Amino acid sequence: MSHEASLRYRHLGIDTAHEYVVYMNAGCHICRAEGFAAQTRLEVHGNERSLIATLNTVHSSLLGIDEASLSVSAQQALGVQAGDALRFSHVPVLVSESDLRAKIYGQRLDATQLAGIVADTVNGRLSDLHLAAFVTACAGDRLDIAETVALTRAMVGAGARLSWQREPVVDKHCVGGLPGNRTTPIVVAIVTAAGLTMPKTSSRAITSPAGTADTMEVLAPVDLDLAAIRRVVEQTGGCVVWGGGMQLSPADDILIRIERPLNLDSDGQLVASILSKKISAGSQRVLIDLPVGPTAKVRSSEVAERLAQRLQQVGATLGLAVDSIITDGTQPIGCGIGPALEARDLLRVLQNQADAPADLRERALLLAGRVLEMGGACAPGEGRLRARALLDSGLAWQQFQAICAAQGGLRDVPHAPLTELIVAPHAGSVRQIDNRVLARIAKLAGAPASAAAGVDLHVKLGQPVEAGQPLYTLHAEAPGELRYAARYASEHGGVIEIAHD
Amino acid sequence: MSHEASLRYRHLGIDTAHEYVVYMNAGCHICRAEGFAAQTRLEVHGNERSLIATLNTVHSSLLGIDEASLSVSAQQALGVQAGDALRFSHVPVLVSESDLRAKIYGQRLDATQLAGIVADTVNGRLSDLHLAAFVTACAGDRLDIAETVALTRAMVGAGARLSWQREPVVDKHCVGGLPGNRTTPIVVAIVTAAGLTMPKTSSRAITSPAGTADTMEVLAPVDLDLAAIRRVVEQTGGCVVWGGGMQLSPADDILIRIERPLNLDSDGQLVASILSKKISAGSQRVLIDLPVGPTAKVRSSEVAERLAQRLQQVGATLGLAVDSIITDGTQPIGCGIGPALEARDLLRVLQNQADAPADLRERALLLAGRVLEMGGACAPGEGRLRARALLDSGLAWQQFQAICAAQGGLRDVPHAPLTELIVAPHAGSVRQIDNRVLARIAKLAGAPASAAAGVDLHVKLGQPVEAGQPLYTLHAEAPGELRYAARYASEHGGVIEIAHD
Repeated sequence: MSHEASLRYRHLGIDTAHEYVVYMNAGCHICRAEGFAAQTRLEVHGNERSLIATLNTVHSSLLGIDEASLSVSAQQALGVQAGDALRFSHVPVLVSESDLRAKIYGQRLDATQLAGIVADTVNGRLSDLHLAAFVTACAGDRLDIAETVALTRAMVGAGARLSWQREPVVDKHCVGGLPGNRTTPIVVAIVTAAGLTMPKTSSRAITSPAGTADTMEVLAPVDLDLAAIRRVVEQTGGCVVWGGGMQLSPADDILIRIERPLNLDSDGQLVASILSKKISAGSQRVLIDLPVGPTAKVRSSEVAERLAQRLQQVGATLGLAVDSIITDGTQPIGCGIGPALEARDLLRVLQNQADAPADLRERALLLAGRVLEMGGACAPGEGRLRARALLDSGLAWQQFQAICAAQGGLRDVPHAPLTELIVAPHAGSVRQIDNRVLARIAKLAGAPASAAAGVDLHVKLGQPVEAGQPLYTLHAEAPGELRYAARYASEHGGVIEIAHD
Repeated sequence: MSHEASLRYRHLGIDTAHEYVVYMNAGCHICRAEGFAAQTRLEVHGNERSLIATLNTVHSSLLGIDEASLSVSAQQALGVQAGDALRFSHVPVLVSESDLRAKIYGQRLDATQLAGIVADTVNGRLSDLHLAAFVTACAGDRLDIAETVALTRAMVGAGARLSWQREPVVDKHCVGGLPGNRTTPIVVAIVTAAGLTMPKTSSRAITSPAGTADTMEVLAPVDLDLAAIRRVVEQTGGCVVWGGGMQLSPADDILIRIERPLNLDSDGQLVASILSKKISAGSQRVLIDLPVGPTAKVRSSEVAERLAQRLQQVGATLGLAVDSIITDGTQPIGCGIGPALEARDLLRVLQNQADAPADLRERALLLAGRVLEMGGACAPGEGRLRARALLDSGLAWQQFQAICAAQGGLRDVPHAPLTELIVAPHAGSVRQIDNRVLARIAKLAGAPASAAAGVDLHVKLGQPVEAGQPLYTLHAEAPGELRYAARYASEHGGVIEIAHD
């Protein structure tokens, strides 16, 4: 294909998520000369950069025959503007494609091969179809320890990596799926109050009603650049910021986006995902919280134990000390589900208020205690006591205020203008709570985009209830969202199952 | 999600190939209320039909906040027009998704499970990511015989099925990859001249410079409806028509579209692909031609033999008699590569012209002979002689004219206005011919869209050549296409490798 043949970029603003798509009029000379049809892969050159994109042909006046457009991610990657020239060439043969095929056919991949696949994942040279094939070929336990180590290292190598001038740098991570489980800001406050360093980079919600970054943003700015983060950590020993802009293991974000719709679990990829983020963030000692429950991400202790062992083993090979803790994941932690409601809960715990959710406080103390022990801030077995002392004395709250101030100032927690109470249909006791449906209801109510929206839970497992007693309250900022959430809640009455005693 | 919330359909005409995509303004009330982002899967309702589509959000004035659009395939499936109301709902839980996951994790699937996956493939409920995961999970030899039988049966069941009032109905199929190998019309002419029934439904080119339907269309109309096909077969005993509009094993077309970019081979899926098309077309006895060569689709005799055995075994279980023949796939057959050039070659063979390509004639006689034997038109071992008699006597040519007349009239073969000769750079002998690069050159010259375009090959393997002796001629209808093809040819001088003797 001739490099001389060019088309002018026209902006259409179509967001396809990560996948690079190029749009051309089906009648343009390039499509006609090459016989290109939808789904052909092309190399696109513009602004002295290039990328590989999938062709969508346009059969309307949307694009002239001398024009081409790009999906938002592709346009941003090239940095082209309206009117810029785009040139096209055939896709070169990719080594990563044949390595991927080898993996599909059951061969083990070495470090170089995995690094090539990860690099081509990050630079968009592999299509979503290739990535789906890759995660499928790695599903279950089809990555052995050596491959998992190599994949983790490759994922770290394909992104930015932070380093800190302090030791030890501790961290904690929760293997998701439990609404309201917002222990991280409390843990950061406690362990940094004890003098440890915990620069926490966290994520926004992907499929949940709130990520730690969403909840923290209710209380303080979280979108800080690296210089600002360094200043905060220098001043306070810790931070709770959004890590999404720092290109820490970007391959992880891309693979998660493919695994999620396929609903695939891969031990190896989960381990590589968690550990690559932690190593990239400069952590040295990490505690992994593995909540187990029928509607949590990890559904059995056996799976959790296998995962814990794998995390420890791969971490050790890569110089990262990993400890895991298997916790109760049968019901939400705390009362609030949604950014502001969760922020309210964690403030109550930090401020030692009488109405602080006991389970959130206990979970945070358990995790903070283990992190204190891992970080050498106390003797083994004394972590929980030490954590409790730091919390009860108000030192943790003082420390949290200092962190928020350093990040840009502590904010007031907003309240949703609209609420609706859901009550028990009959007397009995709470037999089961479906974490997934509850999370869905909170999202329909507007979380996390509407920070004050979500669900406020009033009961716990095993608790006796009367007919008409409040089970939970919907919080919303817009009537439409309240209505959606209420309708979905009424269609899923069993989200909180009341057993007739 | 509320069914009351609707958007108006606006036509954008974006062709994404088979995948259903829905476009919405990122600021529309549905995206905002649901927190939908690019790549969410949605059920789309309109015109009293529904389908599942992947969301692309639009961040421009391309769509108003009360509008939505669909990819061409999705718009056609729903049959909606500009201004029609589209409603949206959450994607229901699909049984086929969890069965797919089971296969990914290494479980065997039963007939019901495979039928569900195939049905959801055809009706577009599984995304391209799911299909990529499916073909990956079946790659290599990960489908056993029982699964291959069940997959084949499911693919037949998910489409239309023809039946004929005559017996036996014979067919042949070539496992592709060999340019110019256009034996089918000759075989049809010979075996129907012997009184057998061979209603041949063939395909257009997908990645090659010409499919059998493209070549046959140079000589007669091939886009006939079922009633017309029945009339042709009733009159002549055979036909060579395009099968693409008849919905014979539509799942096959979809899976091929996914496998091709991944370049995956799966014994089970290849067998299911071939046999489902044949069974759907009403064939009873089928000969499979397996050309073996380093640049053909099948690269070793071992692979070909394993495939032949699998085809026979699965066919037998499904009531289809399958015989296979392993042939030489080291170089193109005949001289022409491209619809009109191949049509010219096959006419020369049928008309017993002195300049008829000997290899094409021999290959056609070999295959026709085997089909005659399979169909009981002659004693075993006498097929080739019988085929030769039918060809040499002019009966096959008479029969071919009758078929063309019945299909709508024999046409003159067009000639390309532009040609360019490629000559040997030095003396020697032809050591190797790269089928794939030669096919690519023919496509760049305009084949198959420009019927007269392509490559006319003047040498065969082992042939001695002088410096400057013609190797092949490029044929094109447009100067730009001739230029592209010539440039690519000059960059790939080794497509025909001349050994210094």
